Amino acid sequence: MSLLVVGSTAFDTVETDSGRVEDCLGGSSTYFSLAGAKFTEVRLVSVVGQDFPDESQELLRKHGIQLDGLEVADGKTFRWSGKYSSDMNSRETLDVQLNTFGDFQPNVPDSFKNTPFVFLANGAPATQASVLDQVESPRFVVADTMDLWIDTAKDGLLELLGRIDGLILNDEEAKMLTGETNLVKAGRRVLDFGPKLAIVKKGEHGSFLFSNYFQYALPAYPTERVLDPTGAGDSFAGGFMGFLAGCETLSLWNMKRAIIYGTVTASLTVESFGVDRLAESSRQEVNQRFDEMIQFVSV
Amino acid sequence: MSLLVVGSTAFDTVETDSGRVEDCLGGSSTYFSLAGAKFTEVRLVSVVGQDFPDESQELLRKHGIQLDGLEVADGKTFRWSGKYSSDMNSRETLDVQLNTFGDFQPNVPDSFKNTPFVFLANGAPATQASVLDQVESPRFVVADTMDLWIDTAKDGLLELLGRIDGLILNDEEAKMLTGETNLVKAGRRVLDFGPKLAIVKKGEHGSFLFSNYFQYALPAYPTERVLDPTGAGDSFAGGFMGFLAGCETLSLWNMKRAIIYGTVTASLTVESFGVDRLAESSRQEVNQRFDEMIQFVSV
Repeated sequence: MSLLVVGSTAFDTVETDSGRVEDCLGGSSTYFSLAGAKFTEVRLVSVVGQDFPDESQELLRKHGIQLDGLEVADGKTFRWSGKYSSDMNSRETLDVQLNTFGDFQPNVPDSFKNTPFVFLANGAPATQASVLDQVESPRFVVADTMDLWIDTAKDGLLELLGRIDGLILNDEEAKMLTGETNLVKAGRRVLDFGPKLAIVKKGEHGSFLFSNYFQYALPAYPTERVLDPTGAGDSFAGGFMGFLAGCETLSLWNMKRAIIYGTVTASLTVESFGVDRLAESSRQEVNQRFDEMIQFVSV
Repeated sequence: MSLLVVGSTAFDTVETDSGRVEDCLGGSSTYFSLAGAKFTEVRLVSVVGQDFPDESQELLRKHGIQLDGLEVADGKTFRWSGKYSSDMNSRETLDVQLNTFGDFQPNVPDSFKNTPFVFLANGAPATQASVLDQVESPRFVVADTMDLWIDTAKDGLLELLGRIDGLILNDEEAKMLTGETNLVKAGRRVLDFGPKLAIVKKGEHGSFLFSNYFQYALPAYPTERVLDPTGAGDSFAGGFMGFLAGCETLSLWNMKRAIIYGTVTASLTVESFGVDRLAESSRQEVNQRFDEMIQFVSV
């Protein structure tokens, strides 16, 4: 089945101990859709400026990503610049130029409105809700969020949580949203707000899936080659949603396998600056890492 | 087979958000042996002062722990006092009184010298090495260490690493020992120093087993009820070594199951102040949590 993503498209300038890149293609919708497109047809809703080059559109298109919802607005594309700590576990934002993304009002094309799987990438809860108003009875909706919205738009976020199936967030955000210091308590408390699933991302420590019926935890793929963590979370979400969108049922078994596929697509992303490694990897390579993960965690 | 542990016995005063206890029985050898004794006969070498009460000895003895190596020296028992942060991920040492433990020269009784499984709890590498000099061709030796020894006795530690089968340490210590910022690199680099196994403890994020032939990662048991993390690492080591000591072979399968048992005994320890919860839990409860862990991590 098809998978809709609504989020940012950006040019990122990133510095890590391994090097520095300028203005490489990034943004939540880009990472998500390149990961999801390994598994299913991805439909993208985002905005760019008139500086957005044809080759970037072409890169997305050649991976089968549907761009009918990619608005080209007057002005420039969103730009973000940041620097990571040596252990890659924290980062400092050096510069943000929202540009055309600052006024982004997602407009879901008619041809996308019946998409059964929907991912609302990180954004203002009101904007995420406006997407839900436009889609027609989706089967499975997952949203991402961040500390900014928990801090400044908590009411809107809580309202959104009553309308979605799953929330993806990191461990600090889960603790912040629920006021719990124990991660297991925090993950379970997220479910009280409405979603049937809470997926807590823990970076190099992997991820934790909470539901009222089961829990599942998975370590990160053990890569030695972390060059740039940017986009890992969105790639995780893309692999997770993309695999699920190709499944017949949303069973526990499929959920667990989807978490593994998300882990694998995130591991590819971090092994290069920007989207290169993720975009270039084949489904075969993804499957091979899936098998490695099974070996890695099985008793 | 029997399991020898050489380490500290202490009285701990611990403060967390959940409460405070004074002078409760603790120390690395205590937590280790109570965890290991769920699985096999544990032989303890440690030192206490003349203030060490009969009921504490009785508690250890009634769990089948052999106390021939428990020296009662002139003076007082080691005392430690600390306070944990709200998220339990860091702690501040408020007071240390080494007392009789300050001059501890482990003396392995003749009846213990042929013990096949040996755990050298955290201590000065020279002291750990002196234990190895006293035991007769043990089958499997694992040591713990800490940042203090990496900092102040690195040569001695590296020499020790050439004589043991496995090293247990936490993620920060693995990075510090190897100079690597990536945990996977760090874990693998530990093996270059000699041990066939490196087990990296990550607290609430579980543990990671490195060898030259395989890797294995396991999340922590998902408990909501973390009252006091003191002794979790030693309880982990005790469950790990205790289970292995009862196995016929040191196979990959047994290693993985030993990591799960270590995870389970650690989870019991953190659910009370001191050793109470660990000591009181039955083998049946341990097995039940083992089964839960299998469900929790299996695909």
